Amino acid sequence: MAELRSDLGWSTPDQVLVRGRDLAADVLGRRSFAWTTFLHLTGREPTAGQEAVFDALLVTLLEHGLTPSAMVARLTHLGAPEALQGAVAAGLLGLGDVFGGSAEAVSAMLREARADGGDDPADRVVASRRAARRPVPGIGHPVHDPVDPRAERLWALAAEHGLDGWYVQTMKQIGEAASRAIGRHLPVNATGAIGALACELDLPAGSERGLALIGRAAGLVGHVLEEQTTPIAREMWVRAEREVTQHALEEPPGGSA
Amino acid sequence: MAELRSDLGWSTPDQVLVRGRDLAADVLGRRSFAWTTFLHLTGREPTAGQEAVFDALLVTLLEHGLTPSAMVARLTHLGAPEALQGAVAAGLLGLGDVFGGSAEAVSAMLREARADGGDDPADRVVASRRAARRPVPGIGHPVHDPVDPRAERLWALAAEHGLDGWYVQTMKQIGEAASRAIGRHLPVNATGAIGALACELDLPAGSERGLALIGRAAGLVGHVLEEQTTPIAREMWVRAEREVTQHALEEPPGGSA
Amino acid sequence: MAELRSDLGWSTPDQVLVRGRDLAADVLGRRSFAWTTFLHLTGREPTAGQEAVFDALLVTLLEHGLTPSAMVARLTHLGAPEALQGAVAAGLLGLGDVFGGSAEAVSAMLREARADGGDDPADRVVASRRAARRPVPGIGHPVHDPVDPRAERLWALAAEHGLDGWYVQTMKQIGEAASRAIGRHLPVNATGAIGALACELDLPAGSERGLALIGRAAGLVGHVLEEQTTPIAREMWVRAEREVTQHALEEPPGGSA
Amino acid sequence: MAELRSDLGWSTPDQVLVRGRDLAADVLGRRSFAWTTFLHLTGREPTAGQEAVFDALLVTLLEHGLTPSAMVARLTHLGAPEALQGAVAAGLLGLGDVFGGSAEAVSAMLREARADGGDDPADRVVASRRAARRPVPGIGHPVHDPVDPRAERLWALAAEHGLDGWYVQTMKQIGEAASRAIGRHLPVNATGAIGALACELDLPAGSERGLALIGRAAGLVGHVLEEQTTPIAREMWVRAEREVTQHALEEPPGGSA
Repeated sequence: MAELRSDLGWSTPDQVLVRGRDLAADVLGRRSFAWTTFLHLTGREPTAGQEAVFDALLVTLLEHGLTPSAMVARLTHLGAPEALQGAVAAGLLGLGDVFGGSAEAVSAMLREARADGGDDPADRVVASRRAARRPVPGIGHPVHDPVDPRAERLWALAAEHGLDGWYVQTMKQIGEAASRAIGRHLPVNATGAIGALACELDLPAGSERGLALIGRAAGLVGHVLEEQTTPIAREMWVRAEREVTQHALEEPPGGSA
Repeated sequence: MAELRSDLGWSTPDQVLVRGRDLAADVLGRRSFAWTTFLHLTGREPTAGQEAVFDALLVTLLEHGLTPSAMVARLTHLGAPEALQGAVAAGLLGLGDVFGGSAEAVSAMLREARADGGDDPADRVVASRRAARRPVPGIGHPVHDPVDPRAERLWALAAEHGLDGWYVQTMKQIGEAASRAIGRHLPVNATGAIGALACELDLPAGSERGLALIGRAAGLVGHVLEEQTTPIAREMWVRAEREVTQHALEEPPGGSA
Repeated sequence: MAELRSDLGWSTPDQVLVRGRDLAADVLGRRSFAWTTFLHLTGREPTAGQEAVFDALLVTLLEHGLTPSAMVARLTHLGAPEALQGAVAAGLLGLGDVFGGSAEAVSAMLREARADGGDDPADRVVASRRAARRPVPGIGHPVHDPVDPRAERLWALAAEHGLDGWYVQTMKQIGEAASRAIGRHLPVNATGAIGALACELDLPAGSERGLALIGRAAGLVGHVLEEQTTPIAREMWVRAEREVTQHALEEPPGGSA
Repeated sequence: MAELRSDLGWSTPDQVLVRGRDLAADVLGRRSFAWTTFLHLTGREPTAGQEAVFDALLVTLLEHGLTPSAMVARLTHLGAPEALQGAVAAGLLGLGDVFGGSAEAVSAMLREARADGGDDPADRVVASRRAARRPVPGIGHPVHDPVDPRAERLWALAAEHGLDGWYVQTMKQIGEAASRAIGRHLPVNATGAIGALACELDLPAGSERGLALIGRAAGLVGHVLEEQTTPIAREMWVRAEREVTQHALEEPPGGSA
């Protein structure tokens, strides 16, 4: 029979331990949420610079306006106001391959390029992706053009804390190489910066989507609280249902009846 | 037709705004996740003391060992490893009335007592609850006895930052009054302290459960990452299924067939 | 140590058992999904009439157009196309007190009236609810006026199968009593009929919301499949975000900065 | 501006329409849940044989004992008893690539083999999978050996209704070819039969996981109702947490502090 083990947390009558640290004596009031989360996810205590950059990643991911996730949390609250946890969980479920997984794709691309070794990694990455007709993740943005202000700021923070190493440099070069290849300026976006910094912080592969879940949990709680005082979910519903009904009445769908 | 409005966030080509602040210029690298979350949920910038206490609340809620939520996240990952967001969302769904709502019950009890006015609020609260056979939330703990170390530490932080006002004092007195009434020492637990501090921070009613969702999102990401390298979900399943099967074979349930 | 027991299902090398019945030998191909679900939820084999009415309840709850739940499933799929289970689960999370719980409220009202005994239960229920300023669940509909065609059809089915007993009669009388009291025709709606029939079928209290979850799971799978070929989620998002952004730019929210 | 359209459902004052059919007049009491779900997912009315086999697929997926999904639903209910929808949604979130997606993998394998054309599709599929070190989905079972009774029964039903065409025959041959290649009897399991029958029914690709979600929704409602009267979630939690704590106290995890 296999044993059930976990290094993450346990309790004794007078202690709560997180990764072996005494939560009350050594963490609460001494360490930030970002510091403790970094420790929890990696088992390592972050340096001051790692903590600052990790904190900035969480803040970047916290809120981005009326996203599909925020709409989902509000629409779920409309039907189930008794369960805030349901509205927030529903919103988080949309942070998948498209919205939550893009930073993961960036990290995977960069880690693979690093493992491949060789010169000019950016040019090679862009060329091989274009040859395989695979998109280059982490570049371009429909609204933020010519630069994504979040990426610029994250680059500056990384430099300030000595965390602008190989992954950051290569991601910037990938942006430039892709722009040259496609003939149009494609700035590194927030996702690209987050993916590169996750590598600099040596976060476990796959944890990038986790950062989005943590940051956005805070964002979604905010949306549900605002929905409680300034509701918009019902209006979104009424408009959409009215339009669908109108189209259906004008051109009744056939089916095979 | 009603309008769709939100004060939380929006974007322009060169800015991302959160509660009207320029995320890149004024928040990233200058403000912590706790500061930004406080602003996001309340619309107010926290003082340094409010930020410190709010941060400590999130850290307190981050991890508490192999809770049902953590088991749920791991068991969900077992069947759906492609979707970290699903495992974390599943885990959060258990933060309801029992596990996530108890701090909410404390806040509501304290806010009601404050609104009622009068002397000796703690004695009145305990007496009226006992008369109505309603439990007093926020006191007692099956493991942490005689004191919950998290509550003690949160009280100390509150005092250090001048946030040990009416709500904190009344919650402490409720613990003492309940212990006298029941004839057994019942310490204020972490939930009691969190509920009282949510009132001191003037957080919106109902946001207490939201704090648990934010903190625990980080905890659950950690559990799924650990499950990926040191799995225990399958063993938990195999043991439980084997036992249920054994009992069923020994005493087959009847039904009405 | 308590034992882990369940009467619902288990397996042996040559059998899968559901409520003690051999799934392959005695259920598959011989019993409908409605029959098996009724057995599973109640431990009782339904009569032919119970099966027919129970099946009709599931069908009634299957699909109701572009509801908030359907919008949620589609918006979640937009961000996480890899996980159909996430989109469906997100949609189900909105079947709470407002959308999923109303049939539950009807059943509870009827069961309480039955337990209270006495004459003229409908008049007493309506009078006591009006006195307490509590709504009467299960009557009135914003679209279906003067009658909800689903309720009418469910009543007819119940009569056909001899299941129009005390609960059905009382629910109809409650609709009439409420209409007289309020001075406006308020037809029993689908929810009212479902709640009354759940009582006639002697389903466990609280299972009404479960019927909605089962039926709507099928509806939501349909919405996600349609979204894959005829997407509308992105358009719903773009419209809503554009409007929120426009309002925010015209009247920037202040905050307390 | 794109239009919002859906063929699935809409309402008028006197009608609720599902795929263009009048729900009250033409579906309720006349058509089963399986029939209506088939119509909803495909836009086609099933033949009597298609309805019977589709119904059997839903019944097969309804309940399979104390699975991880059932444990998740029960553990979630423990913390959030106010929200049945949350417990069921949490349980469904585990029906991903491993538990819910395997029938999908079978269908994809069979559809690809059909599209490839040629003789001896089963041998080619098995050989190419073994060469690529990819598993052959839909065969073998840890408990049901030498045959999976559900698969046998589903094959018999398919034959009875004339739905044992190319996909069913090829799946059976794949089971035999894989057994020969591996030198060990590997019966087609329930998943293999479901995947093959989804092809025979011409269900949309990707809907196989949807069938599991619909059937299992009923199973999970049953588990939460049983948990309300015969709880086991707390015991599962207590045992697991106790063991993790004991190991942690004996060998405190180090971390890098």
